[in-house]
Amino acid sequence: MPALTVAGIAELCGGEAEGELDREIRSVNALADATELELSFVNNRKAAVIAQRSRAGCLLVPLNFSNSERRTIVRVVDPRVAAALVIRVLHPPRPIGSGVHPSASIALSAKLAPDCAVGANAVIGEFAQIGAGSIISAGCVIQDDVIIGECCFLHANVTVYAGVRIANRVALHSGCIIGADGFGFAFNGKYYEKFPQIGGVLIEDDVEIGANTCIDRAAFGVTRIGRGTKIDNMVHIAHNCDIGKHVVIAAQTGFSGAVKVGDYAVVGGQVGVGDKATIESRAIVGSGSGILTSKIVRAGEPVWGTPARPLRQHLEQLASAAKTPQVLKELKSLRERVEKLEKS
Amino acid sequence: MPALTVAGIAELCGGEAEGELDREIRSVNALADATELELSFVNNRKAAVIAQRSRAGCLLVPLNFSNSERRTIVRVVDPRVAAALVIRVLHPPRPIGSGVHPSASIALSAKLAPDCAVGANAVIGEFAQIGAGSIISAGCVIQDDVIIGECCFLHANVTVYAGVRIANRVALHSGCIIGADGFGFAFNGKYYEKFPQIGGVLIEDDVEIGANTCIDRAAFGVTRIGRGTKIDNMVHIAHNCDIGKHVVIAAQTGFSGAVKVGDYAVVGGQVGVGDKATIESRAIVGSGSGILTSKIVRAGEPVWGTPARPLRQHLEQLASAAKTPQVLKELKSLRERVEKLEKS
Amino acid sequence: MPALTVAGIAELCGGEAEGELDREIRSVNALADATELELSFVNNRKAAVIAQRSRAGCLLVPLNFSNSERRTIVRVVDPRVAAALVIRVLHPPRPIGSGVHPSASIALSAKLAPDCAVGANAVIGEFAQIGAGSIISAGCVIQDDVIIGECCFLHANVTVYAGVRIANRVALHSGCIIGADGFGFAFNGKYYEKFPQIGGVLIEDDVEIGANTCIDRAAFGVTRIGRGTKIDNMVHIAHNCDIGKHVVIAAQTGFSGAVKVGDYAVVGGQVGVGDKATIESRAIVGSGSGILTSKIVRAGEPVWGTPARPLRQHLEQLASAAKTPQVLKELKSLRERVEKLEKS
Repeated sequence: MPALTVAGIAELCGGEAEGELDREIRSVNALADATELELSFVNNRKAAVIAQRSRAGCLLVPLNFSNSERRTIVRVVDPRVAAALVIRVLHPPRPIGSGVHPSASIALSAKLAPDCAVGANAVIGEFAQIGAGSIISAGCVIQDDVIIGECCFLHANVTVYAGVRIANRVALHSGCIIGADGFGFAFNGKYYEKFPQIGGVLIEDDVEIGANTCIDRAAFGVTRIGRGTKIDNMVHIAHNCDIGKHVVIAAQTGFSGAVKVGDYAVVGGQVGVGDKATIESRAIVGSGSGILTSKIVRAGEPVWGTPARPLRQHLEQLASAAKTPQVLKELKSLRERVEKLEKS
Repeated sequence: MPALTVAGIAELCGGEAEGELDREIRSVNALADATELELSFVNNRKAAVIAQRSRAGCLLVPLNFSNSERRTIVRVVDPRVAAALVIRVLHPPRPIGSGVHPSASIALSAKLAPDCAVGANAVIGEFAQIGAGSIISAGCVIQDDVIIGECCFLHANVTVYAGVRIANRVALHSGCIIGADGFGFAFNGKYYEKFPQIGGVLIEDDVEIGANTCIDRAAFGVTRIGRGTKIDNMVHIAHNCDIGKHVVIAAQTGFSGAVKVGDYAVVGGQVGVGDKATIESRAIVGSGSGILTSKIVRAGEPVWGTPARPLRQHLEQLASAAKTPQVLKELKSLRERVEKLEKS
Repeated sequence: MPALTVAGIAELCGGEAEGELDREIRSVNALADATELELSFVNNRKAAVIAQRSRAGCLLVPLNFSNSERRTIVRVVDPRVAAALVIRVLHPPRPIGSGVHPSASIALSAKLAPDCAVGANAVIGEFAQIGAGSIISAGCVIQDDVIIGECCFLHANVTVYAGVRIANRVALHSGCIIGADGFGFAFNGKYYEKFPQIGGVLIEDDVEIGANTCIDRAAFGVTRIGRGTKIDNMVHIAHNCDIGKHVVIAAQTGFSGAVKVGDYAVVGGQVGVGDKATIESRAIVGSGSGILTSKIVRAGEPVWGTPARPLRQHLEQLASAAKTPQVLKELKSLRERVEKLEKS
């Protein structure tokens, strides 16, 4: 089992240790649950209060932390980022041996890097390519002509449709469907005819995508997920969306066709975005918001509500809406008083 | 084919029969569709009206049902609960033979109870345990160190990540993803670093979870689903949620991180709950509501809307909001009248 | 590689060509990206503007298109419908050979038409029937007694529960779950007892269903999806819903139990529909709307909002709600002026 001394933790995180520098730490845990053998971290004021009762053997704390109780601490710029580093050392992911499980079905023309791993009952189609260090877990179906780069991790039961391109260090959680047909139909007056979806999907480096999320292929061209973007569970990304770099999208949000999202935007959960809308770089969209078709969301103030508006405006309106029952009463009383005045 | 007499139905349900006690009943059906050989049930006033035209051979009715037409009935405390009992006898689930399908991939170190069933192409990982009478259907992937208790039913194509613990008599519908990583990232100023999710998931006895629902593993500790809780399709439960006992959660609802839900709470469909919010025991949340971060929903009156408020308050506000166009007109007229008065 | 001359395109679409009739077209692309070897199409005014800068070798245009630049065009009644026809010729779907993959598990009593295709690791249960020309892709699980008609396309990792009936030319995208139990429980005062769901699902001809969509089986009778209906990703259709013909349902919408939707209705994304509600034929429901339990949505004006109302009414209310902060201020000023008048 791996372990680190407090001094070792300080070195790993570029921090400054105080207290018992040679104390041994075995794992990382939440403040409320950590024991003397465990590290925890303080990343806001509320956590600082909880920390007072924490039994954690060592705390990662902000630089200005007031250590009045003389605990064993390590001061760092960002305790949460530092904790992630320590977790990586103390809780390494279980090693997954390379090699192809005998029950996997690999097409003869597929090209697998020698040190990739393919799990039980996985299926890999004709002319598909899997890069070095990539893991295709049990039950995944990788269709024809898919190209997957290096060090990707496709968790169990992921489906990748034909021709999708996935770059390097991409993580796809279970149940993801990448490259299903976009929802395109043309009404001929009697019934809907399918508008064939002949585009693809491009997922760039370092993207992580949550469980059961669906990213549809483009009608023409590609649906793109930019480098470093993180997408939560059950998100719907329709055909021809162009999602920028380092975007964060929380669970159950849905993007209609051809939506553009700029780099570093943050989109909350259960947001609905109409087709051809644009969310600009670094814009912030509150959870549950609705962005109308072709609308542009600017950076600056976060937006909220349906239709989404600047947060302050939306909150002001919510507050005054709560007063409408009063308004009705007052209006009635004023009306009576004015009538009285008119008669007098 | 199984059958029950009306007298037998009364005995089974602890009810009181009237009419043809030896009439044979073969199956259960909806009031509008039931035939003379079928049972149906009356569980509210609307159903009582439909029942007048029903051809059902026997009706399960409330104790105070007025049987003016002298039908064959069985009076019971709760007709719907009683109907469920009869269905279990007349429509037994198809028996599923125990044993491991030859195409399943079972790790050598996995421990399977002798009378569990493992379907075609299912995959069971190292050190996983499957209890007596449990069914792991075709295409399921049960990863390393998972512990599944007795008499569980995992429908086809379920994915259970490493280390998840599932108690007894738990039903997981197809496409469920249990134990995928929580959505945790730390922004280092340039890009998002993954905050490794080293906790687990605990699903207690008698839980049923709908198709394509995702329950993420905790960052630390466990995400817990309490005993007897019923969850519908495509629900998202994020890392470190603590869902109590006998909770009901309708489809497409999403819980952000570390939400607490008390026992016997009822949460409608498409509800969004912000992180660290609390829904207290027996609280009721209307469909489509939005609960803000860290908010506490008390029991008592149901809540509705975004942000969620007591139902009466929300309805009053909806009603007065519908009057705002009128308010604007009246305000204008009053303004003019006051101006006139001021001039006079 | 297939190709068509401009004259050939006109013949295929029943249109009228102008310009270089013998120019060869190899593929179809978006206006902005099409090259001289490619066809594109103009289906609205905005597209007509973009078309001016398009390098496309040929354009499908409406009958009244003003071809002032004397481009090579084909005039048609509906350019998008025509484009779909051309795509089908120039981008034929990759042929999928018939036959059963050796790794598939087919029950002995299953009946497969000689020219259907069953992919790797697919599972087909007892007494299931698969019609001629149907494709069951890799990883699909088709349970006992399922009947699938002719020329259906089940993409990878679809799950079809026992007894479901699927007609002809139905497309199910990956991760679809058809026939999981409806969400039916009876509360006995202490805990929820399962109300067994003994009905089925019927999917009629020419239906297409998006990725990870769930359609639950009925409590009694069937949950029905009518002929020609198109359903997007991650839609939830609960037990006993009756969805009409040629209905369109966008992504992440959810229908509670026993909802009726009439033919040719259009339902936007992320809509929530309460149980027993009715959406009449040709009604239109805006994205994100909430339809209350037992409510009837009429055809005519589209509806929007929660609770959903006629669009004009909803927009009027949104506009006046935006003025409530002003109303409060004005009301205060009027009150003061009236007080002054009363004192004078």
